[in-house]
Amino acid sequence: MTKTTIPARVRRYLPILDWGREYSRDTFGSDLVAAVIVTIMLIPQSLAYALLAGLPAQMGLYASILPLIAYAIFGTSRALSVGPVAVVSLMTAAAVGNLALQGTAEYAAAAIVLAFLSGLMLVLMGVLRLGFIANFLSHPVIAGFITASGILIAASQISHILGIKGGGHTLVEILESLWVHLPETNPITLAIGAAATGFLFWVRKGLKPLLIRAGLPGRLAEVLAKAGPVAAVAATTLVVWGLALDARGVAVVGDVPQGLPPLTAPSFDADIWMALAGSAALISLIGFVESVSVAQTLAAKKRQRIVPDQELIGLGASNIASAVSGGYPVTGGFARSVVNFDAGAATPAAGAFTAVGIAVAALFLTPLLHFLPKATLAATIIVAVLSLVDLSILKKTWGYSRADFAAVLVTILVTLGVGVEAGVSAGVVLSVLLFLWKTSRPHIAEVGLVPGTQHFRNILRHKVETHPEVLTIRIDESLYFANARFLEDYIYDRVVPDRALRHVILMCSAVNEIDMSALESLEAINHRLQGLGITLHLSEVKGPVMDRLKRAHFLDELTGRVFLSQYEAMRALTPETGETASRAAE
Amino acid sequence: MTKTTIPARVRRYLPILDWGREYSRDTFGSDLVAAVIVTIMLIPQSLAYALLAGLPAQMGLYASILPLIAYAIFGTSRALSVGPVAVVSLMTAAAVGNLALQGTAEYAAAAIVLAFLSGLMLVLMGVLRLGFIANFLSHPVIAGFITASGILIAASQISHILGIKGGGHTLVEILESLWVHLPETNPITLAIGAAATGFLFWVRKGLKPLLIRAGLPGRLAEVLAKAGPVAAVAATTLVVWGLALDARGVAVVGDVPQGLPPLTAPSFDADIWMALAGSAALISLIGFVESVSVAQTLAAKKRQRIVPDQELIGLGASNIASAVSGGYPVTGGFARSVVNFDAGAATPAAGAFTAVGIAVAALFLTPLLHFLPKATLAATIIVAVLSLVDLSILKKTWGYSRADFAAVLVTILVTLGVGVEAGVSAGVVLSVLLFLWKTSRPHIAEVGLVPGTQHFRNILRHKVETHPEVLTIRIDESLYFANARFLEDYIYDRVVPDRALRHVILMCSAVNEIDMSALESLEAINHRLQGLGITLHLSEVKGPVMDRLKRAHFLDELTGRVFLSQYEAMRALTPETGETASRAAE
Repeated sequence: MTKTTIPARVRRYLPILDWGREYSRDTFGSDLVAAVIVTIMLIPQSLAYALLAGLPAQMGLYASILPLIAYAIFGTSRALSVGPVAVVSLMTAAAVGNLALQGTAEYAAAAIVLAFLSGLMLVLMGVLRLGFIANFLSHPVIAGFITASGILIAASQISHILGIKGGGHTLVEILESLWVHLPETNPITLAIGAAATGFLFWVRKGLKPLLIRAGLPGRLAEVLAKAGPVAAVAATTLVVWGLALDARGVAVVGDVPQGLPPLTAPSFDADIWMALAGSAALISLIGFVESVSVAQTLAAKKRQRIVPDQELIGLGASNIASAVSGGYPVTGGFARSVVNFDAGAATPAAGAFTAVGIAVAALFLTPLLHFLPKATLAATIIVAVLSLVDLSILKKTWGYSRADFAAVLVTILVTLGVGVEAGVSAGVVLSVLLFLWKTSRPHIAEVGLVPGTQHFRNILRHKVETHPEVLTIRIDESLYFANARFLEDYIYDRVVPDRALRHVILMCSAVNEIDMSALESLEAINHRLQGLGITLHLSEVKGPVMDRLKRAHFLDELTGRVFLSQYEAMRALTPETGETASRAAE
Repeated sequence: MTKTTIPARVRRYLPILDWGREYSRDTFGSDLVAAVIVTIMLIPQSLAYALLAGLPAQMGLYASILPLIAYAIFGTSRALSVGPVAVVSLMTAAAVGNLALQGTAEYAAAAIVLAFLSGLMLVLMGVLRLGFIANFLSHPVIAGFITASGILIAASQISHILGIKGGGHTLVEILESLWVHLPETNPITLAIGAAATGFLFWVRKGLKPLLIRAGLPGRLAEVLAKAGPVAAVAATTLVVWGLALDARGVAVVGDVPQGLPPLTAPSFDADIWMALAGSAALISLIGFVESVSVAQTLAAKKRQRIVPDQELIGLGASNIASAVSGGYPVTGGFARSVVNFDAGAATPAAGAFTAVGIAVAALFLTPLLHFLPKATLAATIIVAVLSLVDLSILKKTWGYSRADFAAVLVTILVTLGVGVEAGVSAGVVLSVLLFLWKTSRPHIAEVGLVPGTQHFRNILRHKVETHPEVLTIRIDESLYFANARFLEDYIYDRVVPDRALRHVILMCSAVNEIDMSALESLEAINHRLQGLGITLHLSEVKGPVMDRLKRAHFLDELTGRVFLSQYEAMRALTPETGETASRAAE
């Protein structure tokens, strides 16, 4: 490796400089194979997800060319397959649907602005290292949101299978619209849609084992199984064209402009920007979380690392690239990335090769898409998203934590009943509120010495030694404004009726912070106990907490002492107990 | 004491049943003296705060009659003096000013609705035991808010001292309005206002010592000093009346209806209710927090207890009583309660007697108030609120905690620059966000054994023993969604380059919760470490956390063990270290 003159602070933002220099003929071969397989998967997906987002089919293709190249330059995952994905497409439809009618030029323009805004936000978050914001989307909230989105998406595609008018952003609206238009079902469309759906489910489960039993090598069987959607697209397009079924009411994709995406600047209308800002933020966060979690899982398998803050920049660059080339919001797709990884993608170059594949499709295959029935695309979507639906998270959280269960349930219900943006927002807000509520009512335990050790545990759970003159309280929470008064009340209630008490020790092993409000409460407690003739001590105060207490006057006013360990405190305040324990330990 | 037949669940809501039965001639005497002194203080205050709220003077009197009786029945503090207070009056002006013009009937009607709504909310919070919500107003936020409110209030009264038109809800607006109208200053009003302000400041500081030196008993000197505002009111009213100064441009209170407050139902206009709901919630919380903190301080001095949830009901009943008798929002006043306590108030009956005093004033003294100059009332307000202004909280928090400092500073700046409601909201939101941010980046320490003990501390802060094959990490925070990924990253970064490692112990003494997201992160950590040939152990897991872990599959999958104590863990994993420590301990 030769040393380049590019400074480290620039290189940090350009991962391509690292992997690019080690690029070899071997990695090229692996990347190319992966790219071919992903391209075969991505062509029908990109068309289908554009349909789901309410956009013209070519926008799906456009969102699968430049964004992949941008990610190859700026991204850190070697297996992530960026492009249109189901959940983000649904969120795009929800966001843009508030501003314009589907099918209008304004609708498409708003989707482009959404991609641009989302890209800017992601890059900004990356540069400012704000990736931690995504942590506030808890695992259960995401799981609930993805499941509910999958249900919404599948439901929204049924109208295409039936060949009727669809609509609605909530499950009730979608089902209502289906019910109203059900009598208009087009039997030919339904036949095509049902056949495609059945075929795709069968391909997913049954084709690969069948091919292997027929003697094909495993790798080839895998590739052929992935080609199922392409086969469905080809077959149904041929049927519609051959029998002129479009004249008999089968909705088709229609004319798709031939050629590479046009480079255009997104609209800079301030009103549209303001209207889409909230949605762009949500899409950015959801896209980032989904993308990073699959990228991390795949990287761990090969002992590689992905850099979350740089991932923000990679995904941001992809979305900006999508916006300037007529696409719509993109992110890393779960299923596609796994296929890319399994197919042997060794570097982000695999993504760039996929982009070339899609560009070729845009140049040469678009005329063939005219007779592609929308029902086939709907079938592709339904089969893909039903794998996202996993209600087991409800059972899992119910058994483990009611707070998490509440967050999942609310996320699912609000997503289905009100909409995607409301759903994910409600989940985040509720999980934060529940966390605050829990920390505002901390677990407080009275502890005693476990005989024969220097260890102190809850008197209600363990056989421990205590002393009538000494009360030791372990507070299982950081002390801050929301629980400061709770502690005051607890101690006062416990201490006042106990006339034998002479010492109160606050065991602070679980206190990770004492803020100003809590400090003032401790001062009040110290003062009140003094009035009762009781001395207040602290033990096991953590270093950072102690540093801060030293800067306040509290330690000067404290009637008792600060002990390094609780054992030391007990030995000092009740010498006889300490000796017993000492003897037992020998 | 005889047993009554009133069930406990009713008695809980009626503290008067407890203290009422022990009522004696002695307590009656004490309460009466306190009531006389508080009445003398409250007459000018109630008129002045009504002026501050932009309301007719009699509404201040009305808010000082029935509310005090309601609190005497439902409240738990024996010294709290309920009625109009400065900060709540300012908040009333801010809230109602958005809906109607000062001086109109709509303005007064909206203030009444505000009191009613606030009363309903307080009672509801009391019955549902939601008093903990008030804990989210941290001490520094309240201190900053009170200080900024004091500055705003004082600034807003300068126009009355100058006899010019005032206006504005922010400091800049108020000063701008003063600047614009300064040339219109009425010299006579200014003379009255300046004299009253100077006199009141002197009374506050200098009168009591002077009277004592003159030979008066301390108690009497105290009472006379409290009568300063009444004296100022009487003197300036006489001067204005005698010299007919109202004809020369001195603004006076004017006609005040004579008689007891009219009983009326508040308006039930849904639009007004919706518009005032947010303000009512803020006023309720601020009023409750202020009131409870002074009540708790005074109760502690006599070893009495106040019941925060019942205080909500007491203050709620007072506000409802205020609304149905033509008053406006009330709460417990700081200065007045201290005076009440010092004057010997023994039970809430003192408040009821004060109410009688104010009722007498409303019946017989109102005609005398016609020539009372507004400048005198403004002087009363300025002298009272300047004692609320205490910028030392900025210095105090700066030295102790930058997060608290930021919360105070933002609260003060937003209150002064945008308004009271925005100020307190910004303070609360910022302190919650800072808390979340801090917990999302927990302190993590590598720990080792303090020689000669069974105690483990940070290797960077203490001389401790470690073992090259064992890494012990103490996480100083509950594990939850916001920091789960942080822990994953930390452990992976620390472990991968260290080829000697065979065991990782997570010391959980400071982990008070492990939520679903964190559980999944622990599963991922366990799995990844397994891949590296490293065993994961836990130690010092708290009871409630362990209970929950047992309900999940994690413990079955855990490659290592769960140790009761960290010392036990080290002894089991590195027998030689344990022996050394044992020997040293002997």
